[in-house]
Amino acid sequence: MNIVDIINKKRLNNILTNEEICYAVNEYVKGNVKDYQMSSLLMAIVLNGMTDDEIFVLTDVMLNSGDRIDLSSINGIKVDKHSTGGVGDKTTLILGPLVASAGVSFAKMSGRGLGHTGGTIDKLESINNFEVSIDIDKFIKQVNEIGLSIVSQTGNLVPADKKLYALRDVTGTVSSIPLIASSIMSKKLASGADKIVIDVKVGNGALMPDIDSARRLAQIMVKIGNKYNKETICVLTNMNEPLGNNIGNGLEVIESIDVLKGNGPADLKELVLTLGSIMVSLAKNISPKEAEALLLENLSNGKAYNKFLELVKYQNGDINNIILSDKIVSIKSSKTGFVNSINTLKIGELVRNLGAGRINKDDVIDYGVGFVLNKKVGDYVLENEELLKVYIKNKDVSIVDIINCFEISEHAKEKEKLIYEIVR
Amino acid sequence: MNIVDIINKKRLNNILTNEEICYAVNEYVKGNVKDYQMSSLLMAIVLNGMTDDEIFVLTDVMLNSGDRIDLSSINGIKVDKHSTGGVGDKTTLILGPLVASAGVSFAKMSGRGLGHTGGTIDKLESINNFEVSIDIDKFIKQVNEIGLSIVSQTGNLVPADKKLYALRDVTGTVSSIPLIASSIMSKKLASGADKIVIDVKVGNGALMPDIDSARRLAQIMVKIGNKYNKETICVLTNMNEPLGNNIGNGLEVIESIDVLKGNGPADLKELVLTLGSIMVSLAKNISPKEAEALLLENLSNGKAYNKFLELVKYQNGDINNIILSDKIVSIKSSKTGFVNSINTLKIGELVRNLGAGRINKDDVIDYGVGFVLNKKVGDYVLENEELLKVYIKNKDVSIVDIINCFEISEHAKEKEKLIYEIVR
Repeated sequence: MNIVDIINKKRLNNILTNEEICYAVNEYVKGNVKDYQMSSLLMAIVLNGMTDDEIFVLTDVMLNSGDRIDLSSINGIKVDKHSTGGVGDKTTLILGPLVASAGVSFAKMSGRGLGHTGGTIDKLESINNFEVSIDIDKFIKQVNEIGLSIVSQTGNLVPADKKLYALRDVTGTVSSIPLIASSIMSKKLASGADKIVIDVKVGNGALMPDIDSARRLAQIMVKIGNKYNKETICVLTNMNEPLGNNIGNGLEVIESIDVLKGNGPADLKELVLTLGSIMVSLAKNISPKEAEALLLENLSNGKAYNKFLELVKYQNGDINNIILSDKIVSIKSSKTGFVNSINTLKIGELVRNLGAGRINKDDVIDYGVGFVLNKKVGDYVLENEELLKVYIKNKDVSIVDIINCFEISEHAKEKEKLIYEIVR
Repeated sequence: MNIVDIINKKRLNNILTNEEICYAVNEYVKGNVKDYQMSSLLMAIVLNGMTDDEIFVLTDVMLNSGDRIDLSSINGIKVDKHSTGGVGDKTTLILGPLVASAGVSFAKMSGRGLGHTGGTIDKLESINNFEVSIDIDKFIKQVNEIGLSIVSQTGNLVPADKKLYALRDVTGTVSSIPLIASSIMSKKLASGADKIVIDVKVGNGALMPDIDSARRLAQIMVKIGNKYNKETICVLTNMNEPLGNNIGNGLEVIESIDVLKGNGPADLKELVLTLGSIMVSLAKNISPKEAEALLLENLSNGKAYNKFLELVKYQNGDINNIILSDKIVSIKSSKTGFVNSINTLKIGELVRNLGAGRINKDDVIDYGVGFVLNKKVGDYVLENEELLKVYIKNKDVSIVDIINCFEISEHAKEKEKLIYEIVR
């Protein structure tokens, strides 16, 4: 078997055998298949696709490339949550304490920001001293004691995905349902939860540009989950505008606290309740309606926010010291009208370039910078009224670039739905 | 401008701008674009194609990546000849002396074998002491003195193609009309001839599997040539069986001498006369018919062979010492019937594996090994009659693999044409 024959086979749009997929991935991890060969194979997969069976095998080979976490010493049904990545997506920060406050264990390994999307771990680190590197035994102990822990990925989980993801990021081979599905599901399966809820973002700020492709991604992920007897539910949600109003690490923590205290923007709250009620209903075997009532109660009675305080304290964070820049610029609208669209990808890139994210792997994050939107899609804005605030520090941003993200016109467009559909 | 955006653009099947193509190639030559990024872009080009204008720009960027040879000090119209590569293709060895004997200068830079196809330079080196590394001034001097020189590529000609070709060879990105056309034409244009004749091989032993794709390759190469005012003529020829009977370096020199002496197999002779009469008619501005008569005369009156002797002598070769193995095995047919097809790619690979070619760049060639076919497509063979002779030395070959290359059946198939069509 040799890698050039395998590449040629996929180039000609033929189906790879189990052995060929194993060979390509395992020899790549070992370094015998070179980066330039793997990137060529990845592009052939991006353009020619893979059958469901090929995707199952790819996922399995990646899963078996490293360790798997055993969460069996945590009582109850463990439900993991994942997002395919969006702008202003701080749902994990809210969902963790919220479902834990309802008695559902939340043992979560999260990632850092990538591309134009933020990462939960970066966000948590904007809370002074918050520890994210926690070993597996302490992680499990914490979940058993307070029902909740959020840590950065630890140990040797899915090394094949780590290596492949880094390569895909710099070779234009990110956008591919087979590659995204196998990457997400191998990590979720290795993380040891019993059930998996995935927020599949759709729109101009997401990997999946349209509902059809998002649905296909969701369907194959559900199938993969079922193969391993891990019930998987995908929720297709709108990413044609940032989620909530705040974008940037410290700012997103502030907004998460707002929601946990029973306030916060409507879209963020709706999404958190949708995902949370699915998670709680799966874990407690109750109806989503009952689960939602429980969550709403815990948002208003203070239990959800108190669980967040417990989390921060347990992981050594100083809740009174969330990093925020004190240099704030207000950006006004240059015309009157309805905000009909927001270029969400561009907003994500601008906030990243401002220092909230990384362009290169080793970049240092400015936790205090970001945007606070005052207007979102469907809102009416007057000339000279504030569109957004920019929290700025060391890196600059072009005001014209920001303004250009907002399409403002005389006539209002119908407001889009936030939750498109649920795939299970 | 950055390479990931360029890759993504081609992945989405959009047309690259001139600047983007320049950036990708030039930064790749400089090492700023990495192998793993270029291979991903190449696979996107293989699968999504390029417009004619993109191909023109790619060719031009490659051409301008290095030096161009100036042949203006050689009198007359210089006609270059190229083959897209086949099995048993020794036409250059014959055409050079033949057209030179008719007064047409033949200043030829040739390559070494690659993949399953042989290279003219390797073939010439099977003549003891034959020198192929000759500097450009001596090369031109020789052509002015005897009308003929065949040397290995010298100087810094098309470095972009050298780097790209090496990468394509190991990343499954060889089979692509845009990439093949730009690679061939940038080299031909850099080599300084006034007119170009290209033998485009079609069939199971060639890069182009069918006439349609071969015609498209030919058409774009003719267009590229015209852009530079270099008249280009492509001849589409059959590579569904090896050309002539001999395959392997020394053996192909022997067969070339046979043809130069007026003998040799019919197919090889037909191809040489077709290509040669086009070259001579272009250079001397006479009709192909007149040119062919001249060539036929020089094959029978000894002038062509004498020109070959001059060439070998000038480049220090010992014509009485052509390397051939003395270990010869006869392979017999296991059944009676008509040879209806020969797996030419496989034949090429078997001869290469026997040591006639390289698998890795640094492999040392056995000049004396190869096959001499006793039966070709359309021939009738008796059980136990010889199919071919194997000249063998240090490396083994499987008899079953050889036999399996020949499809023998009761009923004769119609003999295929050798020359399919001429594209100009």
